[in-house]
Amino acid sequence: MKAKVLQLLRTCEDHFVSGEHISNQLSISRTMVWKYIDALRKEGYVIKAVSNKGYHLVEEMDVVNEHAIRSRLEVDAIFQNIIYEDTVTSTQQVAYKLLGEGAPHGTLIVANEQTSGRGRLGREWYSPANTGIWMSLIMRPNIEMQQTPQLTLVAAVALARAIKEATNYDVQIKWPNDLIFNGKKIAGILTEMQSDPDRVKSVIIGIGINVNQQTFPESIANIASSLSLETRETFHRVAIIEHFLREFQWLYHTYLEKGFSFIKPLWEARAISIGEEILAKTANGELKGVAEGISDEGVLLLKDSEGNSHRIYSADIHLLEKE
Amino acid sequence: MKAKVLQLLRTCEDHFVSGEHISNQLSISRTMVWKYIDALRKEGYVIKAVSNKGYHLVEEMDVVNEHAIRSRLEVDAIFQNIIYEDTVTSTQQVAYKLLGEGAPHGTLIVANEQTSGRGRLGREWYSPANTGIWMSLIMRPNIEMQQTPQLTLVAAVALARAIKEATNYDVQIKWPNDLIFNGKKIAGILTEMQSDPDRVKSVIIGIGINVNQQTFPESIANIASSLSLETRETFHRVAIIEHFLREFQWLYHTYLEKGFSFIKPLWEARAISIGEEILAKTANGELKGVAEGISDEGVLLLKDSEGNSHRIYSADIHLLEKE
Repeated sequence: MKAKVLQLLRTCEDHFVSGEHISNQLSISRTMVWKYIDALRKEGYVIKAVSNKGYHLVEEMDVVNEHAIRSRLEVDAIFQNIIYEDTVTSTQQVAYKLLGEGAPHGTLIVANEQTSGRGRLGREWYSPANTGIWMSLIMRPNIEMQQTPQLTLVAAVALARAIKEATNYDVQIKWPNDLIFNGKKIAGILTEMQSDPDRVKSVIIGIGINVNQQTFPESIANIASSLSLETRETFHRVAIIEHFLREFQWLYHTYLEKGFSFIKPLWEARAISIGEEILAKTANGELKGVAEGISDEGVLLLKDSEGNSHRIYSADIHLLEKE
Repeated sequence: MKAKVLQLLRTCEDHFVSGEHISNQLSISRTMVWKYIDALRKEGYVIKAVSNKGYHLVEEMDVVNEHAIRSRLEVDAIFQNIIYEDTVTSTQQVAYKLLGEGAPHGTLIVANEQTSGRGRLGREWYSPANTGIWMSLIMRPNIEMQQTPQLTLVAAVALARAIKEATNYDVQIKWPNDLIFNGKKIAGILTEMQSDPDRVKSVIIGIGINVNQQTFPESIANIASSLSLETRETFHRVAIIEHFLREFQWLYHTYLEKGFSFIKPLWEARAISIGEEILAKTANGELKGVAEGISDEGVLLLKDSEGNSHRIYSADIHLLEKE
């Protein structure tokens, strides 16, 4: 209900909405309207009230919670099952718990803080409170196992587009799962798959976005940054979430319908390493060469100096300095 | 502690164990010894007490619970984290919840009853109380994704050997995941994998064994049976669990050390369909031919009447009647 009140206030951002209008629209008493307004104010929304005119949403603070997200959902949104937690170990871990309770396709877990956020290969992901977006999406897509890495690339394109829309800044994608701004990592995506030999049962897409952090631990300060640190602006996290959910939904549906070939050019247009000399550190050793692009399956294609082609399924990529 | 008392009673099955001996061995008071004995009796263990002689474990009922299992573990057992539940939706679901809490390698979940036990492709698995073994193993093996189906075959060999040891009956294996007795399904194994593009994070091996059921729902009565129905005997579930854990542990370690080639002949020796004419129903259609065996990766090899070889990764197998 709070989400609906917020929605009504937002539809008339420049004008006043009368308590009577809200009361009629949502079939609740005027007293209840006032209670919801009061609760929203306490969360940080600046809502002006003028007799005979009504309520006016003057300013939205960067409030992230379940109804803040829900109030921005499209009617046909996939992610209707929204779980918000203040502090979690990691949203990926919460996702496993929810799978254990039969969580449906379209579950979104968002946390204000992660005490042990994780990136690829179990590496720590710095996830302090109030500054970043730490979220996991649970999906139950009818896809083949070898397709699941493609979902990371779909999410990367959606996230790059969402950041552009919400902040007007362009970010780049570094294969397979990082978003880069001014040469530094500002977001990461980790797709986990739960499968049996017959099928993919579910997929958890974990996303971390450094939005408003002003400092980073020394150990990662030279490789990681936030949108705010790079631009000297601050951004509303919930607006980025809103744009991401919308972008992801249409890209995901188009991907299911038309295949990865639809996503590939969108991905490559934002890719940082294509055509560049890179070093790929894989579990089986290192490979140097030119990143030629990604295959129709989302695999990185690398050509070494002797002209041999390599298909890279999993690696850390380092851009080599040009001489 | 109950597990340790039980262990001490069992080491001297023919003789009496004095309360003093138990008290000394476990560093607990005589009163505590008596309390544990009393608690075990209430669970169904028949324990005789004679003054000046001590306690004598006359008979073990078919008690399945955490300490009943723990009292039968080897010292170096992998599965030290034992969770017993009376009723669960399915032990696989509980396993996901525990993964969400960071469950370690070597977690064993056993339930007395499953209200929505599941087999392959989400099919129902009839799991009534007090009669069968419903369990899931959580492991965090350092293996490649394509190896995980092999764990189903390792578990199948371990289970066939365990049933032989605990009941003295031979059961057969039907690729990929069923155990067959007198032509009917008496056990099934379902291996689920949790992975990201870099690695296998964890594996859940789910196992259902029909031990003492006397009836089956009409819909499955012609394909499913229990060890008891087929033999007119009843069996101790905990003894089958004990043998399985021991067999699985050494087969699993040998598999990691020597590879699947060590498991393959053990599996093929018990396989029901090898050399037979079968019908393989896959997601992409049906294939008829002779099952030639399994590959070194555990894939089913089928040769059709025109001599073409097929590699079957996932299918329902039907033995065709011989003319």
